[in-house]
Amino acid sequence: MITWSNLDTLASFQELSKVAHVDLAKTMAGTNGADRVKKYSIPMAEGSVYNYAAKQVDDDVLAALVKLADEAQLAEKFEALYNGEMVNTGEKRLVLHHMTRGQLGDAVTADGVDKRSFYVEQQQKIADFANKVHAGQITNAAGEKFTTVVQIGIGGSDLGPRAMYRALENWAKKNNTFKMEAKFISNVDPDDAAAVLNSIDVAHAIFVLVSKSGTTLETLTNESFVKNALKNAGLDASKHMIAVTSETSPLAKSEDYLAAFFMDDYIGGRFSSTSAVGGAVLSLAFGPEVFAQFLDGAAAEDKLAQNKDVMKNPEMIDALIGVYERNVLGYPSTAVLPYSQALSRFPAHLQQVDMESNGKSVNRFGEPVNYPTGPVIFGEPGTNGQHSFYQLLHQGTDIVSLQFVGFKNSQIGSDVVIQDSTSQQKLCANVAAQIVAFACGKSDDNRNKNFEGGRPSSIIIGEDVNPKTLGALLSHFENKIMFQGFLWNVNSFDQEGVQLGKVLAKRVLAHETDGALQVFSDLLNI
Amino acid sequence: MITWSNLDTLASFQELSKVAHVDLAKTMAGTNGADRVKKYSIPMAEGSVYNYAAKQVDDDVLAALVKLADEAQLAEKFEALYNGEMVNTGEKRLVLHHMTRGQLGDAVTADGVDKRSFYVEQQQKIADFANKVHAGQITNAAGEKFTTVVQIGIGGSDLGPRAMYRALENWAKKNNTFKMEAKFISNVDPDDAAAVLNSIDVAHAIFVLVSKSGTTLETLTNESFVKNALKNAGLDASKHMIAVTSETSPLAKSEDYLAAFFMDDYIGGRFSSTSAVGGAVLSLAFGPEVFAQFLDGAAAEDKLAQNKDVMKNPEMIDALIGVYERNVLGYPSTAVLPYSQALSRFPAHLQQVDMESNGKSVNRFGEPVNYPTGPVIFGEPGTNGQHSFYQLLHQGTDIVSLQFVGFKNSQIGSDVVIQDSTSQQKLCANVAAQIVAFACGKSDDNRNKNFEGGRPSSIIIGEDVNPKTLGALLSHFENKIMFQGFLWNVNSFDQEGVQLGKVLAKRVLAHETDGALQVFSDLLNI
Repeated sequence: MITWSNLDTLASFQELSKVAHVDLAKTMAGTNGADRVKKYSIPMAEGSVYNYAAKQVDDDVLAALVKLADEAQLAEKFEALYNGEMVNTGEKRLVLHHMTRGQLGDAVTADGVDKRSFYVEQQQKIADFANKVHAGQITNAAGEKFTTVVQIGIGGSDLGPRAMYRALENWAKKNNTFKMEAKFISNVDPDDAAAVLNSIDVAHAIFVLVSKSGTTLETLTNESFVKNALKNAGLDASKHMIAVTSETSPLAKSEDYLAAFFMDDYIGGRFSSTSAVGGAVLSLAFGPEVFAQFLDGAAAEDKLAQNKDVMKNPEMIDALIGVYERNVLGYPSTAVLPYSQALSRFPAHLQQVDMESNGKSVNRFGEPVNYPTGPVIFGEPGTNGQHSFYQLLHQGTDIVSLQFVGFKNSQIGSDVVIQDSTSQQKLCANVAAQIVAFACGKSDDNRNKNFEGGRPSSIIIGEDVNPKTLGALLSHFENKIMFQGFLWNVNSFDQEGVQLGKVLAKRVLAHETDGALQVFSDLLNI
Repeated sequence: MITWSNLDTLASFQELSKVAHVDLAKTMAGTNGADRVKKYSIPMAEGSVYNYAAKQVDDDVLAALVKLADEAQLAEKFEALYNGEMVNTGEKRLVLHHMTRGQLGDAVTADGVDKRSFYVEQQQKIADFANKVHAGQITNAAGEKFTTVVQIGIGGSDLGPRAMYRALENWAKKNNTFKMEAKFISNVDPDDAAAVLNSIDVAHAIFVLVSKSGTTLETLTNESFVKNALKNAGLDASKHMIAVTSETSPLAKSEDYLAAFFMDDYIGGRFSSTSAVGGAVLSLAFGPEVFAQFLDGAAAEDKLAQNKDVMKNPEMIDALIGVYERNVLGYPSTAVLPYSQALSRFPAHLQQVDMESNGKSVNRFGEPVNYPTGPVIFGEPGTNGQHSFYQLLHQGTDIVSLQFVGFKNSQIGSDVVIQDSTSQQKLCANVAAQIVAFACGKSDDNRNKNFEGGRPSSIIIGEDVNPKTLGALLSHFENKIMFQGFLWNVNSFDQEGVQLGKVLAKRVLAHETDGALQVFSDLLNI
């Protein structure tokens, strides 16, 4: 029997709040620090590992976190979710994104079909379509091959697929699975679409229109923008466009598209990278086999997230430590710091997944909560960030929780030895150094050069960024965020906070405003 | 006589802390809201305007802020800075980045030369060089024109120039001043350099090596990476590289470069976009006239920042409100939200300028401060962010201070009318709507759909993103951050917090580690 309770009503949370805080600088020093790094480590899928030695925890804190996981029924709630319980109570929807990459539990039937079969079928349809495009069986009207794919979507239909494309672009080139370049149009700013269209050969471009509802303002506007451009180039837009949407959307059966592939209401936009939303563009760009490997990596990590032994469940531990940092230690924000240029847009994707899921002030019953929920998430790749905002992370007045990601090997494999080390070794040396610098600090009589330390971080270490490790990484964060939503007792799967702005923007465009909104509209020449 | 005092020792700050807080949702409603939008607005340079109507201020708060500016001697401190006082006391350096674009006060002599003349001379040398490259008078060894410029730099030598390049790329194309594409290599991750090199025609590329000290690990490593690639392509690297550095650096007189252009120790990396650091790459990409216009815009805004009438000084008011939000209202982070795809990397640049300048825990005398200093800064362009992290901004448990930027017109001018409005109108309608949605909220019996409002924002509105408005925008934020540093009594011009990580990374590479650092190094296969 599952009970949905506010975090501060749980006895285990009260207990956790009373456990003595860990002096991180002290505990991470010397052989004790070395022992922690060996001990506080959990295997992830695809050879990766989650290490939390440099987090502000010890065996006492961890024991309290395990109790909290237990009392909050994290494992049971996840089980209910993947077995098809209506966990998104606000919108009265199931939450089935895990099923786009595997089946963790019971068969789930909805809309009269087995949902796992539905997602597999869509993936297969996309694979067939992509293979035909690559083989030159589906071409433009002149019978010529498509050479570029352009995704038109925003938010969840953009950030995840874009981050995954960037992450795998060079891997695919290196591994001879690169099929065509992908571009992305998202912003309603006309300069976005115009610049992308100016940069490609539209006659050989295939466009993927992505909107679950088929009503997203930006996406429909950009579709018209693109159709205009195709028309001006003397091209038949319907021979250049496919749609990814829900079966009930106005786009689903339109003759404006070469093909339509489906997701459904049980896949939230920000969790849709492993659905047709990511599937179409990534299969076209890299081939369906690469997309399938990405799904395999995510599925493998999902299985680890099922583990009821909290200490062996990397997603659950990560989630619990994050809540401890937010609600007991009081740290207001989290930086995601991948030491990999391939992951340059991964933090922007996680920013959406996390902040849109858990940036809520009411619990799942619509009652205000009395504690902080989701933190601000930001990040840039290392080592770039080291020469930018790390100053504040090391010596600022607020402590920021840190989430590093590192890889033993580069993607392209092209490297150079300078001063007896490769660039990849320098990259890895830097992330190792940063963890210890943040945790241990270094005292200096010149206070300006003094580092207090005590700044907590975790690191995920993988072999290299490839489709499988990327899938596992994505699953890790998706599941971490889900578990945190359970702990905060919020509905992580709706986003009512985005509605008011849409309503007011429509009012501006209809010239139905007054007061401050009218004056701002005047200032902006609308 | 200037006195450097901690914020909390100022009587005016104590007074400010006692002023009644403004109920933003209430005050921004109805005709009062409309009046505020008209009233709380300050002209900026180049036709832009800074509007703070939706900030949590009223005439009482503003009066207290004016007193604070006065007691903190903001105008006098700025005057001392641009007249050549050694404001960067930690590193014992002058702070002269304003002088790269104009002369605000006295002539300043340092290193035996008039510094304004020195910066102008460097700008002129770069202009001559760029003109010769564009005219085909400086070419590759085969006598062929260069078609791509690649900046090799990190931190301040990367983020600013990259953001400015992105901001003006489409403007330059539209206005027929686009000379060549620019690319950027920054990360020590070998995949960064390898991917850029794979994407260009190296035989026709000119590389700009940027490092003030000439010792930056990442930059020298990437230089070797590039030289290797040039050698492998049978090319003479010295015919493809220029250096931007200080006159005392090892790079300054090397024969490895076609030319060297200089900055000096009085230009902090993060404030170097208007020096040779931005000048070389932007003049090569867009022509020196465009770079000169960018400087003109910055110079014009700098002049406004001199205004001793606080209420007519957009940089000072912005700085003061930010400190009020941070130190009285307690908001821990600030989102920078440009409604312009051209400004997609502008927030990443500001993240450095702000967090590296003011993320400090000690005052300029090296004494710990008892109050929060620089906030976390993050942001993405609108409308993209609306479909991502705005959920937390609207309904999260923490209030995030918001800084919008909007433009009346697009850059490329290619647009489409859908449902009776252009994309540009939709973009502007959205930013206007967001300001009011954040400020006023909307009550709903369903608490999940309830918006409390009271979330403060300001907006800078410009005509369009062009070299001059961009320069003014950059100057606005640079000066805002400088004024905040004065208020917090920190040294905004050093960055000791980045040192420890560098030291430890070297130790890892030299295999001189033990404890936790050694085990992390093992895990990362270094």
